[in-house]
Amino acid sequence: MPENGHQNLAMVTCTAPVNIAVIKYWGKRDEDLILPINSSLSVTLHQEQLKTMTTIACSRSFQQDRIWLNGKEEDISCPRLQSCLQEIRRLARKRRNTGDPTSDVSIVSNKVHICSVNNFPTAAGLASSAAGYACLVYTLSQLFGVEGELSAVARQGSGSACRSLYGGFVQWKMGEWSDGKDSIAEQVESESYWPELRVLILVVSAEQKSVGSTSGMHTSVKTSQLLKYRASVVVPCRMEEMIRVIRQRDFQAFGELTMKDSNQFHATCLDTYPPIFYLNNVSHRIISLVHRYNQYYGETKVAYTFDAGPNAVIYTLQEHLPEFVQVVRHFFPSEANGSEFVRGLPVCSADLSEELKRDLNMEPTPKGIHYIISTKAGPGPCVVEDPSQHLLGVDGLPKKRVVSE
Amino acid sequence: MPENGHQNLAMVTCTAPVNIAVIKYWGKRDEDLILPINSSLSVTLHQEQLKTMTTIACSRSFQQDRIWLNGKEEDISCPRLQSCLQEIRRLARKRRNTGDPTSDVSIVSNKVHICSVNNFPTAAGLASSAAGYACLVYTLSQLFGVEGELSAVARQGSGSACRSLYGGFVQWKMGEWSDGKDSIAEQVESESYWPELRVLILVVSAEQKSVGSTSGMHTSVKTSQLLKYRASVVVPCRMEEMIRVIRQRDFQAFGELTMKDSNQFHATCLDTYPPIFYLNNVSHRIISLVHRYNQYYGETKVAYTFDAGPNAVIYTLQEHLPEFVQVVRHFFPSEANGSEFVRGLPVCSADLSEELKRDLNMEPTPKGIHYIISTKAGPGPCVVEDPSQHLLGVDGLPKKRVVSE
Repeated sequence: MPENGHQNLAMVTCTAPVNIAVIKYWGKRDEDLILPINSSLSVTLHQEQLKTMTTIACSRSFQQDRIWLNGKEEDISCPRLQSCLQEIRRLARKRRNTGDPTSDVSIVSNKVHICSVNNFPTAAGLASSAAGYACLVYTLSQLFGVEGELSAVARQGSGSACRSLYGGFVQWKMGEWSDGKDSIAEQVESESYWPELRVLILVVSAEQKSVGSTSGMHTSVKTSQLLKYRASVVVPCRMEEMIRVIRQRDFQAFGELTMKDSNQFHATCLDTYPPIFYLNNVSHRIISLVHRYNQYYGETKVAYTFDAGPNAVIYTLQEHLPEFVQVVRHFFPSEANGSEFVRGLPVCSADLSEELKRDLNMEPTPKGIHYIISTKAGPGPCVVEDPSQHLLGVDGLPKKRVVSE
Repeated sequence: MPENGHQNLAMVTCTAPVNIAVIKYWGKRDEDLILPINSSLSVTLHQEQLKTMTTIACSRSFQQDRIWLNGKEEDISCPRLQSCLQEIRRLARKRRNTGDPTSDVSIVSNKVHICSVNNFPTAAGLASSAAGYACLVYTLSQLFGVEGELSAVARQGSGSACRSLYGGFVQWKMGEWSDGKDSIAEQVESESYWPELRVLILVVSAEQKSVGSTSGMHTSVKTSQLLKYRASVVVPCRMEEMIRVIRQRDFQAFGELTMKDSNQFHATCLDTYPPIFYLNNVSHRIISLVHRYNQYYGETKVAYTFDAGPNAVIYTLQEHLPEFVQVVRHFFPSEANGSEFVRGLPVCSADLSEELKRDLNMEPTPKGIHYIISTKAGPGPCVVEDPSQHLLGVDGLPKKRVVSE
């Protein structure tokens, strides 16, 4: 817990990753504690491409808790923010009361200033709340010297945030208890377990704003009979199978199950009343392209998954990456030049055979995909040791106000 | 059974209606006998707007069975055609053998010429197989003097054809027996039971050909866990509820259940692997418009249902029709002039309030809808008494060959 000296200012900066579920979370059994109706499983993405960075300072001289998100001050009274702050402070006091000699007795009662930014544009439509709440809770825990089960705290900010507290392959066990203490995330395997696995995010242009996931899943739980069946019967089997195929590094089985579970999640959205559509025509075409591509080779080389929006996340293996990226370039020709269209981890170029292009038998969809982010599995939250990286200055205010909208 | 004299020619012409399911049929438990995995329920549409007309002639001098569909000779060896022909001939012989004095002993062994046309364009993407097989079976039964359970015969041509043998509100009971003898259609209420009920078909432009329903439902039965649950648990309750709300003429409950069942059918298509998409962006916008319209009034005034394609079928009441048609005109402006855009039963004009247009809060989608067919519930198959209407001449060949493609 570094101290900057002035004004009794304590300051910590951490980063946390985005995660993409392969067994989807959709529906709460407890809206306040954010307890899910089924377990879920995700891959944590590498922070080099996608991360949230959060600096939290506390000082006796701060008058109130304050928060700045992507350069703009936001209302700290948001109930989910308050849940996380209160819960971490409770854990910190508990630790002090149990007499841990390393705990700082005074700091917990100080007000905090929180400043958080994403290294990816909000406009990309990538869910940032998981990385955001994971980073908030992790940074607070570092500041207050809280150890132990943080995923149950992050879960109260945003359900899927609990999975962003670990790297690699992470399950969120739904738990059984009504207090939610057993509804926590656990690492299944680390990010180094399956190094050949690669991830592409295909950023699709949304015509209209989708239904938010909080209200969407609320309506689904109330109205979809298929969701009840999925949560109680289908997902428990799929969780076991998904953990098994990840441990076996069986891409074909992993890819097929990932696609089936994405489709079933969107099926339950359609069974919701009124129905919710997150996939648009471009999403449909990406799905069709992936199935035609796999069909051409007679094996699952590439798999898609879609969250509460039209963007596709593609899982594939390193060896299949160059050709598939070229296939995407061919069928979704972009206005951008080559270097801008694929961002993140470099992708080798590849030539497509005329036979492949012909057999895929699709009309190109110009400008259907804005750009691609190329990435892979990565680690959980990290402490940033370099003090020059702090987002707050010694005055406890954001160093620069850049509104990234 | 009229006889034309020449060549011992017997000839009958009949018409049969289209039906639109409100509890959907999707999935067979027996592919040969066409036995469904759940019961279904439909509204028979009026033949003035949509019908198939079929003339069947038989003569000792015909060398082989032949069929002309919409002016083009087709292959009579199609297994489903053969099933219907064989089954009707078997019933006719059975009747003869049981000594019915009115049955014609010779006619059954004669070859038939079949000529069938629709009064609506094939390009509209309206499923015509139900009307087609219902008309084939009904006309054959008239020609051969077969009475009794025809729906189990028509079912073997196309599952939903069994429902087109009755007018009004018709259920297809799935049955339990392995020989399919109890998988038959029954009228719930006649077309005159709910005269205020009106139907609009919104003909949407399809960008690409959809997966055919036969192969689609085959894949769904093999791969969708949600479909199994729907068929075994959800639909039995919905059938009871649908019959009850029709008998009560409760449009709000009828409309809501109709929309939910359409959505659940499409949800099971999305849960199919690989997934099947029948709804396109225009379909999504129609769904959204209907929900916004109902929301505006705080009641279900209008309901949609979609079969295996992007066309919407709208159920509403007479009193709500003019305004809703004007809403569709406003949000789906057409290139056609007014008189062509709405076809079929006349619809009064209506003015839209600025408040309604503003509250629906949608961007117009120009040319999203080609045209509208305005219709209502109607009767089952009919015999056409006027011999000038026969589609076959005294030579047993189609009177005029017009290829309506």
